Amino acid sequence: MAKLPRSPLAPDRFPDMPEIGGLRLATVEAGVRYAGRRDVMLALLAPGSAVAGVFTRSATRSANVLDCQRKIGAEAEGAGAAILVNSGNSNAFTGRAGEGSVQAICTAVSKATGLPQARVFTSATGVIGERLPHDRITDRIGALVNGLAPGKLGEAAEAIMTTDTFPKGAAAELVIDGQTVRIAGIAKGSGMIAPDMATMLVYIFTDARIERSQLQQMLGALNDRTFNNITVDSDTSTSDTLLMAATGASGVDVTGHDGFRDALHGVMLDLAHQVVRDGEGATKFVTVQVTGAASDADARTHALAIANSPLVKTAIAGEDPNWGRIVMAVGKSGAAADRDLLTIRFGDVLVAEKGWVAESYREEQGAAQMKQAEIEIGVDIGLGAGQATVWTCDLTHGYISINADYRS
Amino acid sequence: MAKLPRSPLAPDRFPDMPEIGGLRLATVEAGVRYAGRRDVMLALLAPGSAVAGVFTRSATRSANVLDCQRKIGAEAEGAGAAILVNSGNSNAFTGRAGEGSVQAICTAVSKATGLPQARVFTSATGVIGERLPHDRITDRIGALVNGLAPGKLGEAAEAIMTTDTFPKGAAAELVIDGQTVRIAGIAKGSGMIAPDMATMLVYIFTDARIERSQLQQMLGALNDRTFNNITVDSDTSTSDTLLMAATGASGVDVTGHDGFRDALHGVMLDLAHQVVRDGEGATKFVTVQVTGAASDADARTHALAIANSPLVKTAIAGEDPNWGRIVMAVGKSGAAADRDLLTIRFGDVLVAEKGWVAESYREEQGAAQMKQAEIEIGVDIGLGAGQATVWTCDLTHGYISINADYRS
Repeated sequence: MAKLPRSPLAPDRFPDMPEIGGLRLATVEAGVRYAGRRDVMLALLAPGSAVAGVFTRSATRSANVLDCQRKIGAEAEGAGAAILVNSGNSNAFTGRAGEGSVQAICTAVSKATGLPQARVFTSATGVIGERLPHDRITDRIGALVNGLAPGKLGEAAEAIMTTDTFPKGAAAELVIDGQTVRIAGIAKGSGMIAPDMATMLVYIFTDARIERSQLQQMLGALNDRTFNNITVDSDTSTSDTLLMAATGASGVDVTGHDGFRDALHGVMLDLAHQVVRDGEGATKFVTVQVTGAASDADARTHALAIANSPLVKTAIAGEDPNWGRIVMAVGKSGAAADRDLLTIRFGDVLVAEKGWVAESYREEQGAAQMKQAEIEIGVDIGLGAGQATVWTCDLTHGYISINADYRS
Repeated sequence: MAKLPRSPLAPDRFPDMPEIGGLRLATVEAGVRYAGRRDVMLALLAPGSAVAGVFTRSATRSANVLDCQRKIGAEAEGAGAAILVNSGNSNAFTGRAGEGSVQAICTAVSKATGLPQARVFTSATGVIGERLPHDRITDRIGALVNGLAPGKLGEAAEAIMTTDTFPKGAAAELVIDGQTVRIAGIAKGSGMIAPDMATMLVYIFTDARIERSQLQQMLGALNDRTFNNITVDSDTSTSDTLLMAATGASGVDVTGHDGFRDALHGVMLDLAHQVVRDGEGATKFVTVQVTGAASDADARTHALAIANSPLVKTAIAGEDPNWGRIVMAVGKSGAAADRDLLTIRFGDVLVAEKGWVAESYREEQGAAQMKQAEIEIGVDIGLGAGQATVWTCDLTHGYISINADYRS
């Protein structure tokens, strides 16, 4: 399919990324599916690295995801670790052959690096249901290992792209007890699942020291406030993977450190927002903030119902301040609501309250809000203290074109 | 907004509708919102009629729906009944004023017909959040009552249309113990909720005799296999209403009669399919049949996940036999599934089995299936005996145009 233009919501440029001690990266052209571009990345992590992960809950998840999940549980903290990611083919729904491909790649990486297989993690992203030509990858493991070097995060972010229109990266540095700790992450994704090009993949590295179970707990909790709260089209990938590795190279233990947690939260939120900003056909970046729900879970249910509603998303595409569709979405969500207690805002404009349009509201105020590239929808349910924020984009002709007009 | 062209999936013509003994209808131009067309219908049912109803479960449902729900429970079987429906304004999210409008209309109908208010049912469909100018309706009650006559179901089907591109009707006759029993129904809807034009409304009439609670039970059960299993865009209206009245004029008691139940099922399924065929922007009528699920409920969850997936619906619009997206939808549904037990068919073409593309499958077979206007997707989960069938349409540029390009 034709190369898509860069999203109008993309950041100006790829950010400067710090070097992470204990991390070396390499990328290579393996020709898995794409010609003339790098399509495989290898990350090598120094001995002592803790690796944590969060994965799709899809019942039809890929062989790579299943393999990662088995390994993330197993403790082998003394060893280093490797992460190999290919784009072009997701190795999803490829039956038993898919497991064979993962095995072949892990064996080759293990042999070339001396790492135990239990410490080799893989991801794959791209077409579903076609056998992964893993020989093309295993043939290049030597070249990858020879090419390993510090830095290279930008190159890695490009190697894992499929229908993404820009590479995604985010980083943070903080000083703890006089010593600098660094976090750097890359991501890909432009839909929960793109046209036969499955997946959101995220890899975050830090030189902080933290015990694996602590890292896993922090990552899971922050995931619920970042990647789990974005939606482009409500469709869930068979390959979604978030891996985080802490090398400990800085010597700084961050267990229970709020500043580190906040910095990591910032990196994850930045990457999550970039995925939405690259949403297929997106022209608006939309923040849906729900307050006053009976519980946080109810607030999230309402927020996702609004963010996933085709009628809300098409109204935003049309710059139509159509608050009736928001009422509809709240009503259908299944979470508790009372028509006469709802308050709706677009940005700082009060649109509706007490079950009806606000007396002060003028249509042109709502229309002006809708003209912006970044839109905030605020809904107060009026029942309790539950709240949630979800990020999404609009639903446009561009989405239909990408997913219907082109044959995959 | 501009008048939309008749759906390419519409039936050739409105069906011949039988007269229902004990039912008289009238329509009138009240100018609620539309000019130059009939926009209010009144149905008057003879004394002894049983009235049953099924309604949206939206937490933000309209004043009319709330009023109907209160009355459907109350027994007053000796009396006749009236149903008044207006198009152009849904009287939804109009605060306390909405309840006042319903009250005003019910009072006027009650006065003009001599019926108790508890036997006057109303529906409204159209724009959300604007006060219903109910005076325009109450001013025409006299004209409506004077115009009441048998037949007129086609006229009524037209009066309740909003963004529908064709009027929807279905009928059945059956002979029980040598006597003819008739069922006739009309519906409107072209999306679970259309551009500010909420709603699916359905009215079914029969001259059969049946006790109210029996009718209610039958209607609810059949609704779960018909209207509850269609989806255009996963959005749920604040006004969905299905009312059924049995006048008893035929003198035939149909309590527990399977033939009557089957005939009613047929009428409801026909109307439900017509709503999908008028789905906004629809070019394909899609049947999703799930078998082999752990339970019927699981089967329905899978079927709705497939039918509501934007990626599945855009693939169908693009005539792309993209079975990977069906795997994805099954995986994300939350119901039990095992990748390696899935079987997928397009029509009679076996596409995938045992977790992978079928050996016999050729892409051109799938492509040929996708070129048809009526598409059948069959998914066997391979776990149990649960099954469900759901009907939907594709997601096209037409949907985006109707919902985004036009300002409401």
